[in-house]
Amino acid sequence: MKVIVIGGTGTIGKAVVKELQQRHEVILAGHQSGDIQIELEDNASIEKMYQTNPGLDAVIATTGRVHFAEMSAMSAQDYFVGLNSKLMGQVNLVLIGQHYLNEGGSFTLTSGILSHDPIRAGSSASMVNGALDSFVRAAAIELAKNLRINVVSPTVITESMSTYGPYFRGFEPVSAARAALAYSKSVEGAQTGQVYQVG
Amino acid sequence: MKVIVIGGTGTIGKAVVKELQQRHEVILAGHQSGDIQIELEDNASIEKMYQTNPGLDAVIATTGRVHFAEMSAMSAQDYFVGLNSKLMGQVNLVLIGQHYLNEGGSFTLTSGILSHDPIRAGSSASMVNGALDSFVRAAAIELAKNLRINVVSPTVITESMSTYGPYFRGFEPVSAARAALAYSKSVEGAQTGQVYQVG
Repeated sequence: MKVIVIGGTGTIGKAVVKELQQRHEVILAGHQSGDIQIELEDNASIEKMYQTNPGLDAVIATTGRVHFAEMSAMSAQDYFVGLNSKLMGQVNLVLIGQHYLNEGGSFTLTSGILSHDPIRAGSSASMVNGALDSFVRAAAIELAKNLRINVVSPTVITESMSTYGPYFRGFEPVSAARAALAYSKSVEGAQTGQVYQVG
Repeated sequence: MKVIVIGGTGTIGKAVVKELQQRHEVILAGHQSGDIQIELEDNASIEKMYQTNPGLDAVIATTGRVHFAEMSAMSAQDYFVGLNSKLMGQVNLVLIGQHYLNEGGSFTLTSGILSHDPIRAGSSASMVNGALDSFVRAAAIELAKNLRINVVSPTVITESMSTYGPYFRGFEPVSAARAALAYSKSVEGAQTGQVYQVG
């Protein structure tokens, strides 16, 4: 298969690339690094990615920013960071990509545990993750050309605990390599509309 | 209690007002009708509502627009109709209202069944409803002053079947009066962070 991993140079992305490139042709896309550059909040950038990389079988997104802050200090604009980046950035990949992917191809997005297991300062991440999970359930029943879509919802990643540990006290982390298995299941399996909880 | 119902002239809102005004002082807020007018996408309008109606114990939102269309024809802009209106309109009520509500007050928002039981052309509604459910779970653990927050997630409403019936074949509708009970439970009970499925 020909697979593109957007965010392939991040913590989860690197593990996904390592898992999949054993068996597939994998292209790394990043904001600044990777084989190709992409700006998910810019539809023209996404169109260009699909046009210059024809014949894709799988699109994986392991990227997207969200603003973390106490809700009492959050403004609507702060929530739009996550809505524009992690939510609609990934959704844009699907909206545009549905017209480019090979028959039977798949999209695999990334949400996270905070949709249902919230932490302080994480209300924007919760919102975005819940939106992604529900979008994927809905998108799965509408995609044409036997396209599939799933979302991986990991808990905090072991390799990120030095940064995120203080926010996730009591959460059992999982390794990026273990999270990567869920992406493999999504790409190489046949399921659609699934939210793969990892952790 | 002093309760404000934003969207109190809509199908669900009218039933909520009928249920609650038996026991409480209820103010109807609407976009164009009602006791007072409010524009949820305009923070100044929300601030004005709270400043001119001090001492609120409960804020109920039964309002918000979402764009329905086949996903193959949806643009990012189409999704932002729902993100701006039904999602962030209701969230803005909470972000601003948390600084105005009486100690022990409550917010009750409205999502819907499509978060987990999708229909064709409903991917934006699914996204928004999932975002609302997860936001409420997260907001509940951060609110100060013993404030509470819940969300009511109804199936299609009997009184709306003439309009929405063709989209919701096979869904068992519930009456607006029955849905209104969930708002009563949220306002008059003591729970927080709950997603009340109705239907």
